[in-house]
Amino acid sequence: MSLSIVLDRSARAPIYQQVAGQIREQIGMGQLPAGARLPTIRQLAQQLGVTRLTVQTAYAELQSGGWLEATVGRGTFVSQSAAVDAPPAAAHLDLLRAVTPAAVMGDILQIGHGREKHSLASASPDPLLFPADEFWGCLADQRRNAAAIAGYGPAQGDIQLRMALADYLHDRTIQATPAEILVTAGVTQGLALSAAALAEPGDVVLVEQPTYIGILHQLRMAGLQPMGIPMDEGGIRLDALDKMAAQARPRFLYTIPSFQNPTGSCLSLQRRRDLLALARTHGFLIVEDDIYALLAYDAPAPPPLKALDEHGLVIYLSSFSKVLMPGLRLGCLLAPPYLLDRLLSLRLAADLVSPSLLQQTLAAFLQAGGLRRHLRRVLPVYRRRRDAMMAALQRYAPPPLRWTVPAGGFCTWLTMPRHHALAELARLMRQGGWEIAPGDVFLAQPSGEQHVRLCFGSQPDDALARSMRTMGQIVREQLAQPDIALQDGGDFAPLV
Amino acid sequence: MSLSIVLDRSARAPIYQQVAGQIREQIGMGQLPAGARLPTIRQLAQQLGVTRLTVQTAYAELQSGGWLEATVGRGTFVSQSAAVDAPPAAAHLDLLRAVTPAAVMGDILQIGHGREKHSLASASPDPLLFPADEFWGCLADQRRNAAAIAGYGPAQGDIQLRMALADYLHDRTIQATPAEILVTAGVTQGLALSAAALAEPGDVVLVEQPTYIGILHQLRMAGLQPMGIPMDEGGIRLDALDKMAAQARPRFLYTIPSFQNPTGSCLSLQRRRDLLALARTHGFLIVEDDIYALLAYDAPAPPPLKALDEHGLVIYLSSFSKVLMPGLRLGCLLAPPYLLDRLLSLRLAADLVSPSLLQQTLAAFLQAGGLRRHLRRVLPVYRRRRDAMMAALQRYAPPPLRWTVPAGGFCTWLTMPRHHALAELARLMRQGGWEIAPGDVFLAQPSGEQHVRLCFGSQPDDALARSMRTMGQIVREQLAQPDIALQDGGDFAPLV
Repeated sequence: MSLSIVLDRSARAPIYQQVAGQIREQIGMGQLPAGARLPTIRQLAQQLGVTRLTVQTAYAELQSGGWLEATVGRGTFVSQSAAVDAPPAAAHLDLLRAVTPAAVMGDILQIGHGREKHSLASASPDPLLFPADEFWGCLADQRRNAAAIAGYGPAQGDIQLRMALADYLHDRTIQATPAEILVTAGVTQGLALSAAALAEPGDVVLVEQPTYIGILHQLRMAGLQPMGIPMDEGGIRLDALDKMAAQARPRFLYTIPSFQNPTGSCLSLQRRRDLLALARTHGFLIVEDDIYALLAYDAPAPPPLKALDEHGLVIYLSSFSKVLMPGLRLGCLLAPPYLLDRLLSLRLAADLVSPSLLQQTLAAFLQAGGLRRHLRRVLPVYRRRRDAMMAALQRYAPPPLRWTVPAGGFCTWLTMPRHHALAELARLMRQGGWEIAPGDVFLAQPSGEQHVRLCFGSQPDDALARSMRTMGQIVREQLAQPDIALQDGGDFAPLV
Repeated sequence: MSLSIVLDRSARAPIYQQVAGQIREQIGMGQLPAGARLPTIRQLAQQLGVTRLTVQTAYAELQSGGWLEATVGRGTFVSQSAAVDAPPAAAHLDLLRAVTPAAVMGDILQIGHGREKHSLASASPDPLLFPADEFWGCLADQRRNAAAIAGYGPAQGDIQLRMALADYLHDRTIQATPAEILVTAGVTQGLALSAAALAEPGDVVLVEQPTYIGILHQLRMAGLQPMGIPMDEGGIRLDALDKMAAQARPRFLYTIPSFQNPTGSCLSLQRRRDLLALARTHGFLIVEDDIYALLAYDAPAPPPLKALDEHGLVIYLSSFSKVLMPGLRLGCLLAPPYLLDRLLSLRLAADLVSPSLLQQTLAAFLQAGGLRRHLRRVLPVYRRRRDAMMAALQRYAPPPLRWTVPAGGFCTWLTMPRHHALAELARLMRQGGWEIAPGDVFLAQPSGEQHVRLCFGSQPDDALARSMRTMGQIVREQLAQPDIALQDGGDFAPLV
């Protein structure tokens, strides 16, 4: 079915409120009877030409108001009780699942490829910097190996690649043999396997606040409870971690200690040691995401937690999505020996193995020193972009905004007053040709403020400056109109 | 730690019993105290030079006898109660998980690549038949696209590939638009996503008996209860399905209607229609695995269930691992519209997306008609191998053995008397240079008989004849020695 909804893009009311309001109206007038099935988020977003996030937010508001009900595997329906003025329906497990940031992440993946937009939304490397010649050379060399690459290959990963990964880890000060390494389809898969190995539905998992959008989505899909630990300029706050770990008895902590996504912060060596000591005290494991560590612009990152781990507390994850290219979908996992068989079992259950052709090509690329050469080439470029972004924020962002200063990685994290018109800002930025990622989707719990993640990796310096000038103008105009900026307690509903 | 175990490969007692016996002895003598950690299955298998299956079977026997305890995330330990003659420990959830056929599947993946062995164990296409020239041509063409293939790409899959898949499905009599198709990392991932979308821990899932080893592993890892439905020559028995569905109220049925793995059986059009009617009656969904359908040697397979599905009951899965090459790790999923968003969410949580380079290469290969050309070339070869395998069984397999006659796919399913010395047969075949897959791992419940899956896809005709001559000799010798063949109720313990 399709809904009859007319949007007024010049109206002050946010699009999601217009969508929700017109659906509510149609339910109220009996045009949508109790039990009627609504279009999927995807369908309605397509019909209206809006993002799925907008429709999702509208549906979430109607659900929390008791107008709609979602049933897993069936769809979203008008509540039986919606015609009369009933109390809001109880929160439903399946509903919670449906309102995870999955669609947002899907949008970000697609935004990252929008040709017509400049994206500040995706924490991706610049595809134009991809070392095409050298990579294609390694790929072409696999041709002689055509029969071998046609098969499944070893379950744990291609042995040449695991040998190259052992060298790569050695450069990160980690001693590991190929027998201890599991090739994964990227950090996302490493995280999914780790969560499945370590926790059961209902368990608490600690994350940084804010954190990578994907882990929040994964934890919620798995029925796990993410709990966000506040951060300061130096990364995760250990006093807060100590308290929350004692209360919540978490199964594990997910952390990005080096050049964190989305804040860019980097844990000092001392804080890494103290973090490991806390894990031992409270008996939780650590899942360490080292994906940004080699993108260091000022000084090398300290050793990973895994290199400091003397008690088998750390599962180490990394991938080549940030330092090389996301499209490879290859990463590695290094676990304490007692977990490796279980993680391998879970990998077999998830998708068997990674494509042998790409594994062998990456092995050849790493063995030939291609990654080191590539980093020498791109690090100065990304450093300049980081500097350009910081300078542009300094110059154009009006006073109430503040932001982090990353020493590596691709992201800076903006904080705004609670009542800032964030959805409107994103809409106006999009009109101006710029995609930005709303900050709520990176939070395990509401923070009491509003945020934007800005990624500077895939845009040239001058584009970054222009984008921040545009953003500064929009924010300044918004601040001059308190009636918009302050309307009804924030116009961007938290997704969960 | 390593255990002091000495194996006598000429002894009559199976290796796993020797391993279990010596561990039991060491516990009994106090050499292994209560609480002592045992090596992992992987470590001990490596130390002893035996397969992981052997160690797993030994550990499983010791666990069911109460000698050992397995704790998830910690390892396997000598029971606290093992020193005294305690009652067997209660079955432990984590133990059940540890004793799934994961390691067997891992072994089969590796066996499929053993250079020194001829494998009849893996249901894989012959890598030597891989259309190397045409595939590498399509791959090289992507070079012009280097920047685009470096990125993540759309979450649902490359649009060119989804368009090519819509055409591919059209040839299978399924009408689908690219918007309805989800690109997966193969049928295994499609299955994992479907199980996660449709069922929760404890739910019953129906499977064919026997069925694909991977689904049993996946269901057990997910805490689901596989229940096997008996088959006859025509495939799954609907009378049995009707009864078991009424009793067990399953969430879904997993079926391979065309050229099933491991039996090779193919459901008639009428039985497909009747199966759909039963699904509607009992209210379960069907996950259809169509991976072997195009490998038809005598007549085309009937339309897939999905093409006959008028009520949104079927999730359709296929992949290019059998018709082209497993190393691609690409497949497709077609679900009723109400499930698509949820499945896409689960895919994002699992590993985000498939590698764009391989997606675009496969799209080009399909669009150029490469798959049709490849099938015209390989189908006569596989048909001859099927014929050679059937002729060799006819000629060499002694009377108590019986086997299925597949009209497509890569497998035939041998059945033997209950007390046949199957592990010994596998060992002697391996000595003769042939790997075979023990049948127990394809069964949801013990069948009361013993089985072997024999795959004929990756061996030339004369090799198949030689392998069956060898097998026939071993079996005949075993049958002449009833003291071995009948020892203690079967020498190959069921894994679950």
